[in-house]
Formats: sequence, structure tokens, C-alpha cells
Amino acid sequence: MHGGDIYSNEHPSGRNLIDFSSNSNPYGPPKGVKANLAMALEHANKYPDIQYRLLKKEIQKHNNLKKKNIVLGNGAGEILDLAIRRVESLLILNPAYSEYEESTNRYDIELFHSKYKHCNVASGPSFCQIYDVNVEDNRKLYQLEVDEEEFWSKFDIADAVVLAHPNNPDGSTFPVDKMQEIINFTKENKKKLIIDETFFDYTHGQMSFTSFLEEDIDLIVIKAITKFYGLPGIRFGYGLCSNESIAEEIAKYQRPWNINAFAENFAIVCFADKDYSKSMNSINKEEREWMTDELIKIKEIKRVYISQGNYILLMLQKIKAEELKRQLIGKGILIRNCDNYKNLGEYHMRVAVKKREDNIKLLTEMKNILG
Amino acid sequence: MHGGDIYSNEHPSGRNLIDFSSNSNPYGPPKGVKANLAMALEHANKYPDIQYRLLKKEIQKHNNLKKKNIVLGNGAGEILDLAIRRVESLLILNPAYSEYEESTNRYDIELFHSKYKHCNVASGPSFCQIYDVNVEDNRKLYQLEVDEEEFWSKFDIADAVVLAHPNNPDGSTFPVDKMQEIINFTKENKKKLIIDETFFDYTHGQMSFTSFLEEDIDLIVIKAITKFYGLPGIRFGYGLCSNESIAEEIAKYQRPWNINAFAENFAIVCFADKDYSKSMNSINKEEREWMTDELIKIKEIKRVYISQGNYILLMLQKIKAEELKRQLIGKGILIRNCDNYKNLGEYHMRVAVKKREDNIKLLTEMKNILG
Repeated sequence: MHGGDIYSNEHPSGRNLIDFSSNSNPYGPPKGVKANLAMALEHANKYPDIQYRLLKKEIQKHNNLKKKNIVLGNGAGEILDLAIRRVESLLILNPAYSEYEESTNRYDIELFHSKYKHCNVASGPSFCQIYDVNVEDNRKLYQLEVDEEEFWSKFDIADAVVLAHPNNPDGSTFPVDKMQEIINFTKENKKKLIIDETFFDYTHGQMSFTSFLEEDIDLIVIKAITKFYGLPGIRFGYGLCSNESIAEEIAKYQRPWNINAFAENFAIVCFADKDYSKSMNSINKEEREWMTDELIKIKEIKRVYISQGNYILLMLQKIKAEELKRQLIGKGILIRNCDNYKNLGEYHMRVAVKKREDNIKLLTEMKNILG
Repeated sequence: MHGGDIYSNEHPSGRNLIDFSSNSNPYGPPKGVKANLAMALEHANKYPDIQYRLLKKEIQKHNNLKKKNIVLGNGAGEILDLAIRRVESLLILNPAYSEYEESTNRYDIELFHSKYKHCNVASGPSFCQIYDVNVEDNRKLYQLEVDEEEFWSKFDIADAVVLAHPNNPDGSTFPVDKMQEIINFTKENKKKLIIDETFFDYTHGQMSFTSFLEEDIDLIVIKAITKFYGLPGIRFGYGLCSNESIAEEIAKYQRPWNINAFAENFAIVCFADKDYSKSMNSINKEEREWMTDELIKIKEIKRVYISQGNYILLMLQKIKAEELKRQLIGKGILIRNCDNYKNLGEYHMRVAVKKREDNIKLLTEMKNILG
């Protein structure tokens, strides 16, 4: 169900595979993290601050928050799970990260589904301004967009909605006017809003839903630092809540000291390194756009979805994604087959945006196989 | 509610306090942990194995298990919480670790209480053979023992019981005949048994409840490596289940990748270091017994409880624990006031067994204050 399973027996080369199935930053963490290793180990000899005062203060500063309704998770998934736990019914837009549905199943929460529309950029989608459409064959450029009619009618009956901004596996974001409409509807109809911004750091010129935290609505914005800062293994994410009682409801089901000393230390180091953040963001943008252009050139790729993340969704033409995945493993490359996402099919696959040399390897092998 | 809160504003010296309130190993982790730091950081750049295959294999080996129904927790507390979650009603023996009751409150589980008896060793308690009673005034030596009559009558109506072996805050353990009786009763009456062995590594000549994992009963034994190996900040514990369906019920409420890469790596390093384990165990035993003898010599201490852990429960005579704590903070020492434990009173306190030099400081300051 997840990417990154490079340890499974079906992949004999294991950790040596170039892993395009998981979205971790290939450049590794900020230098300060390594420099801070010994201190983190020293702190690990004591219990962490049970209230994580310093870490919460840094999160508040990093996000320019007035309110301080912060909840900390052993991975963003913990906050996501507890945010979903407190709703009665949930609307999910598909395709979506599989854990949204997993959580509803854990707590017997009623589930509603709505679908993104697959829009061709050449026919004029509303978000295409975020990508400089100057490629060889822009008819292949696609973007997922909210199917408004279906979305509003389903949101009307659901207690809550979870939206990813940008979405995984495609990387689409919500334009400001759409965000405002969602906020208004949430307020007027006393709905609950869960926003998954775990990949938001990769976006450019986008507005974060944190802008609405001061509003009188039931909103949780979920952030992760571990993806963008190349540290998925440290497990750290957090939730920003629009009011104190949401934070209390989340915290009720958390155990003391849920954040490991290494996560606690490294998060603070990561927040401090503004240069790293700026440079990773622009490197990724450049590489993502270059890769998008290159993928379009491969004849047997039918669609390339415009992304604001560090991953790109593709649709193949003749070879099924599972078959391409099988053949690429033989070449030491792991991709993500997307046929288990709702509203995607057997020909959909996702690749991470990695370093140029690895991306070239992927493109070369894909060309060899697809012809 | 917990020890180790050295970050609170009420303790101006913060991290500089000698912390006798938390039970972390003062000698720090095995050397291999430091040597493994760089590799752990490298692994943190990838998602951990979603199934933690290698770690589970090492746990199986470390505990000589035939069955492999292992569940991993971000701290032993995660497993404890999920183990309690699956019962309908729970019996707790008091005094007990506060999280047992916290978990029952989270899930609206019916709670039954039973009390340990405070037995004077001089009057011949059943466990006194585990301590060489050769001290100046053995009338002060106490041990907590199960109040059999109350225990069996309450266990008869509860769905499950949680037992700590050794118990926290006093360090008492269950003798083999009592363990066998509990197992028999559990089996005959289809009860559930949760055994907290997070401090078991410190005991000597004691039998672990893991010996009963092959029986046809509903048993979870919870272990932690982070306390004994001086790494409470890495948050890692695990549960050994007597059958697969228990493990599945626990795992159902866990999120993927709940174990951080540093915890994953260091646990394996710790398991491998048998010398560290042996030497920490014997250093702690020697120091605990020395400290017990020294504490008995302080006139204003009324009771010293025999412990199998790395902490000692005391009962004062004239000064309340809260007042002694306040005065000791002024001397740079933090102790654990135990008045919020059921079945203990305002005069009960707990101290960790630390290094000789720190223990001497504690004893000196206590003598100065208590006279």
C-alpha cells in the first residue's frame, strides 16, 4: 500500500535499489543535523521534556503563528490518524494517500468518496499558470482538479473532509479562490477540515491553509518536516489546530514522550536552516520541471500530471505499470505502481524527483523498455 | 504524574539537576550506540522497513522465542496502551505506574483496584530471600506483597489484570509459585494477562513471564530496552504476545513506520552487547543494595522497600515527601514524591539508583535535612 518498501523479499537488491517509489529528499538532511548527532545522543539519555516546550516554540516561530494550538506526532501519520478519529464521517477526494481510508477503517467512520477530474492542460485547466507550458507536446500534460459538483454535494452530507495540499500521488494544489470557498462552506455548515500539507514545503507561490487558522472554524493543518528535510526515518510531524479544544481532543489519545530525542533535536536544527530550505525548494522545482519535460518526450507515456510536489504521476499507454515496475526492478530501479489508488488505473505510476544522475538513469531505462 | 520533569519552570536549574526522579541508566548506552550514530543517520534518510523484519528477528533471538508474535512500540507505553485498549475491564494492583489508569480512562474501560500489602521483612515476608538481610535495622525493611484474598476476588470479576514485574515504584517481583497460580487462573477463567516487564533486566535470579508465552492463554509481556540501556529518549519498547490474533489486534491501531530509524538501529546494537548487559545488571544490584543499607541508617526514614529494580521506595517519618523534595531541589537534587500513587501516602518517595558519587550526594543532603 505504501512506497519505499525496498526491504521486501521481492526486491533482491534491497537497499541498493534506486528508490523512485518513496518521496524522500535525495540530498539528505541539513548539515547541522550531522553536527548535532552527539548532542542528540546525549539528550537521549534523559526523558524528553514531557511538554516539548522548546520544540513547540520553534514550530510557532517557523509558521508565524499567533495561536499555539500545536500537537506533535511520531510522524505526520499520528496526527492524521487522530484528526480523522474525531470526525463522524469523512469525505476523501480520490486518488488520495491510502492512510486516510486506513484511519476511517480503524475507527468505523463513515466514508464518502469524491473524484478529482483528470483535466488536460492543453484544453485550459484553471491551475496551469503554475507551470510554464512550453513543452514539446502539451497535450500530454494533465492536472487533477476538483469535480466541483460532486465535491460540494458530498461535502454537504459528510461531517468532515481531508484535503491534501499538494495532493499525493499527483501533486495538485488548491487555488486561493477554491481554498476560500472551502473555508466559507466549512464555517457556514459547521464542518471539520483536515488539511494534509506534508509536501507543502516543495510548492512555489502557493498559499498555505495555515492562513485560515485564525478563523472561527474547525481546522487542522498537518505538516511534516521529515520528507522535505530528507529524514523520513526520524518520524516527526505536527498539527496546527484552529482552537484549543481540537488540540486537546488530539492529545487525549497520545501517550507521553511520543517524540523521540533525535526527532526533537533535528526538527529544531531543520527549522533554523533557511538556506537549506530555499535551495532544496528551488533545486526540486527545476528538476521537477526538467523531468516533466523529459517524460513528455517518451512516446509511450500517455499523460504527465503537473505536480507541485517532489513526485510526478504518469499514465502509460501500452505497458501496464506493474509490468514496467517488474522490468525496472531488474535494472535496479523501484517505481510506484498506482493501480491501488481509487480513480487511477493499471496504467498509472508515480516517480519521485531525485538527483539529475538518478533521474537520467530512470529516463534511460524507461525509454529502453517503452521504446 | 511522571518523574523526570527536569524542564519545568519550577526547577530553575533544569537539566543541571541530579535527577533521582527518573529511572534511566546513569551509565549511558553501550559504546556501540555512539559508533553507530552515523549509520543510523544514513538510514534516517530512507523510510524504515515497514515490517521491521531485522529488528523483529533480533528480538526473537534476544528473548529465545519460538513464536514470533512481536509488536513494536514507540516506547513501551504504546504497547501498554494498546494492550489495555483490548480489554473490557482491568484490575490494577496499587501502587502502580500511572499510565495503567490513564489508558483505561482513554477507552472508558471499567477499572478494578486491588492493593499490595506493605509487609515488614523482619516479620518474615515471602520474598525476603532475594535480599541478604544483614543490615543494621531490618525492622525498617519492607516489601509490597499481593493481598491474595482481595486480588483473587477482584480478578474473578475483571476481564484482565496488568501486573508489573518488577513493580514501579517499589521494585517488587512475583515469585514463581505465584506466577504459576496467576497463569492457571488466567487459563481456567479465560482472562487476559498484561505483564509489564519494562524494568525486568535489572532483576536477579527472577523468572520472566515470557516463560509462559507458549501456554494457551491470552498473555502480553511488555519489554523496554530504553530504560536499562540508558536511552529513554529513543522511545522503544515491544510486546510479546502468546498468539497471533493478539498481535493483530494491537497492530490494528498502530500506524506504519512507528519506530524511528535511531530506535531501530540502536535496539539491535543494544541486544548484541551482552557484556554491557551483564555489567550494568551487577553494578546496579551492588549499588541498590549498598544504597538500601545506607538509607536504613538515616533515622528519619521509617521504611525502605526492598527493590529488584533500579529505584527504591521510601517512607519518611516526620517530613512529608513534598517538603523534602522542595528542600532537595534547592540542593540541585530532584526526587519523586509518591503521594499521587494509590495505596501510598504523603510520606512516600522514590529515588533512582545512580552512580556512587551522586548517591552519596543524595544521602548526604538527606541526612542534613532529615537530621
